[in-house]
Amino acid sequence: MAVAVQQLKRISGNNIVTPKGYKAVGIHCGLKHKKYDLAVLISEVPASVAGVFTTNAIQAAPLLVTKEVVKENGKMQAIIINSGNANACTGAQGMADALMMQQKTAEKFGLAQELVGVASTGVIGEKMKMVPILNGIEKLKPEASLEGSIQFSQAILTTDTVTKNTAYKTVVDSKEVIIAGTAKGSGMIEPNMATMLGFITTDAHIESAHLQQALKEVTEVTFNSITVDGDTSTNDMVLVLANGLAGNEPLTPSHPDWATFVKALHTVAQDLAKMIAKDGEGATKLIEVEVDGALSDSEARKIAKTVVGSPLVKTAVFGCDANWGRVIAAVGYSGASVDPNGITIKIGETVVVTNGEPAQFSEDLLMQYLKQPEVRIHVHLNVGSGQGLAWGCDLTYDYVQINATYRS
Amino acid sequence: MAVAVQQLKRISGNNIVTPKGYKAVGIHCGLKHKKYDLAVLISEVPASVAGVFTTNAIQAAPLLVTKEVVKENGKMQAIIINSGNANACTGAQGMADALMMQQKTAEKFGLAQELVGVASTGVIGEKMKMVPILNGIEKLKPEASLEGSIQFSQAILTTDTVTKNTAYKTVVDSKEVIIAGTAKGSGMIEPNMATMLGFITTDAHIESAHLQQALKEVTEVTFNSITVDGDTSTNDMVLVLANGLAGNEPLTPSHPDWATFVKALHTVAQDLAKMIAKDGEGATKLIEVEVDGALSDSEARKIAKTVVGSPLVKTAVFGCDANWGRVIAAVGYSGASVDPNGITIKIGETVVVTNGEPAQFSEDLLMQYLKQPEVRIHVHLNVGSGQGLAWGCDLTYDYVQINATYRS
Repeated sequence: MAVAVQQLKRISGNNIVTPKGYKAVGIHCGLKHKKYDLAVLISEVPASVAGVFTTNAIQAAPLLVTKEVVKENGKMQAIIINSGNANACTGAQGMADALMMQQKTAEKFGLAQELVGVASTGVIGEKMKMVPILNGIEKLKPEASLEGSIQFSQAILTTDTVTKNTAYKTVVDSKEVIIAGTAKGSGMIEPNMATMLGFITTDAHIESAHLQQALKEVTEVTFNSITVDGDTSTNDMVLVLANGLAGNEPLTPSHPDWATFVKALHTVAQDLAKMIAKDGEGATKLIEVEVDGALSDSEARKIAKTVVGSPLVKTAVFGCDANWGRVIAAVGYSGASVDPNGITIKIGETVVVTNGEPAQFSEDLLMQYLKQPEVRIHVHLNVGSGQGLAWGCDLTYDYVQINATYRS
Repeated sequence: MAVAVQQLKRISGNNIVTPKGYKAVGIHCGLKHKKYDLAVLISEVPASVAGVFTTNAIQAAPLLVTKEVVKENGKMQAIIINSGNANACTGAQGMADALMMQQKTAEKFGLAQELVGVASTGVIGEKMKMVPILNGIEKLKPEASLEGSIQFSQAILTTDTVTKNTAYKTVVDSKEVIIAGTAKGSGMIEPNMATMLGFITTDAHIESAHLQQALKEVTEVTFNSITVDGDTSTNDMVLVLANGLAGNEPLTPSHPDWATFVKALHTVAQDLAKMIAKDGEGATKLIEVEVDGALSDSEARKIAKTVVGSPLVKTAVFGCDANWGRVIAAVGYSGASVDPNGITIKIGETVVVTNGEPAQFSEDLLMQYLKQPEVRIHVHLNVGSGQGLAWGCDLTYDYVQINATYRS
């Protein structure tokens, strides 16, 4: 059986409703001052669903409701999302509110309640204002248009400065399959799903168990490989809906185009993850850290995440300072196996450390490089063949400003 | 046998040479632009020594030299310290330089080389300038005076804004025993010894193995319970010298005054740890987090450290924002066992969360409280009887400024 990976083509427009059978919209209902704060995504038919959720022990009510849908039913047809209030640490009333959002959305669109997911993002510990939400749900008119999906991607934002969208097409069983995604991120982003919402749609035909398997595999090397500030949140989730309207034979790990589908899902997830990292609160730069020569892939990722999460590395990158000492110190405290005398570090294409000792390089040229909007740090260890990537952003005055004043 | 703990009395002056038989001094040798950058501490007689060292896999040459002295000899009579250069990631030359510092200090003061410890702090990855150091060593004239010890405590600083000194006296075997300490900290402070140097002197009589035992016990709940930015360094160490000149019977765990001595050591270490946290880079406030009702003491400390290390909590405290949602989110992602519905949180004396749900409180009064230079957060869990403390500081514009421009 041929296992060639089909070509993946980026679709401009980057529209979450590009796959067949999806509609979306976002509106202002009144939780926020002026901005869009309520959104819905709907599939024409019940879709297979897979989800990954925060590992925080404190989990918001909407997250618990949605987890139940994913785990019990494996099918979802609509997701209702609000920004401005996380509905977390809100007790029994919070759970009642999340269920009410689910129920009213189901009624409005004539769906079974157990096919509706709920997601919330915003301030923790404040009771939901249900009147604007319920009135808002009544007003939602999802469309299969670019406009609808743009409004959707705006309505899910909190302190994000840009919307985050991506879409690709590929071929499965000679049928065109489209996969698209929208996300929000910004503060509190860390490995293991922190105030991050990701919604991925596809018209591929795949059962939820296999979709879950693919999502899990892909999440580890994408959404779980970004960090903004190390805080993980109470509300984060990534959901994938697959409604089957592309008409392919059901995808399973033994399907000849399985690798094609996983690659497409991986690409969408990585695009979204990098957009989230780049738009971290106050960030001016995306930092990509690549590690190879580690004992294992997971050790390589651990080191990459430690380096990209180091406040001292993040501030040095903000200051355009080629301060590799902070990079090597972070490698050292990552907890991974390292040989201090076997570490080689490049910033961009410039070797700054060879076998644990300083290399000769031009600080001026490197400072120029560090002024770019994307900075790449490469760490080579000499202890194995494990490799991994992680993404983050610089730490700036604006991060402090945003978070010292966020609620007021 | 009575195990009453003797009274501990703070000595004003807070002077590391207050215990019998110690001298110290600090000078400007030329590694830094103008500030003091070379210091020595000497005991009249060889002292028992105990040490704890960074857990970073990358360890600076001076640290390796000093570790050897502590582990092989258990005795130390002098410590030579420079600031301005960490002598880390400097290869074979760096090791030769550290050994040269040890050797020249021994020669200058007529001591055996293996009785001299070496400590360095500053930029990583730059070769040491040995000419100013060696000339500087020749000029060192340690004194048993307040002035000498003030110069000492100044010369070990990097981005610290204040010197850190403390001293106490107590009674062991009816003899007066004095214990004093000096430290530097600031950036890169994290559990497990990050760019932190701590030097503690006492005239108590105690063998090095027992001194090591006491130091280890105390370090976990003091120096390892502070965090500034989560970065751990290549150079950090805390050394305790005990020269025995107080004339007490050797302290062992079965000595009736063992608890008195451990309490004195704990108090000195905690004073220094809190001073380091309070003087974290750019900090305006000390944050103390107390956790009780945890599954174990170590889980309580883990939660306390996670809360005090959260960038979102740190920026909220800087902004005087009673954003307890960030506190409870940090409790949730600490990895410790928690019951979301059993968490009660106080900021100062104000209850903000009861059993996982928001309590009624005055935001205005709490904002006034958060303007104080020391902020206390108390987290009660309902899962056991473990308790712990951790200390940190707020995250401010100045932290970013200091670290974006440190080398330039």
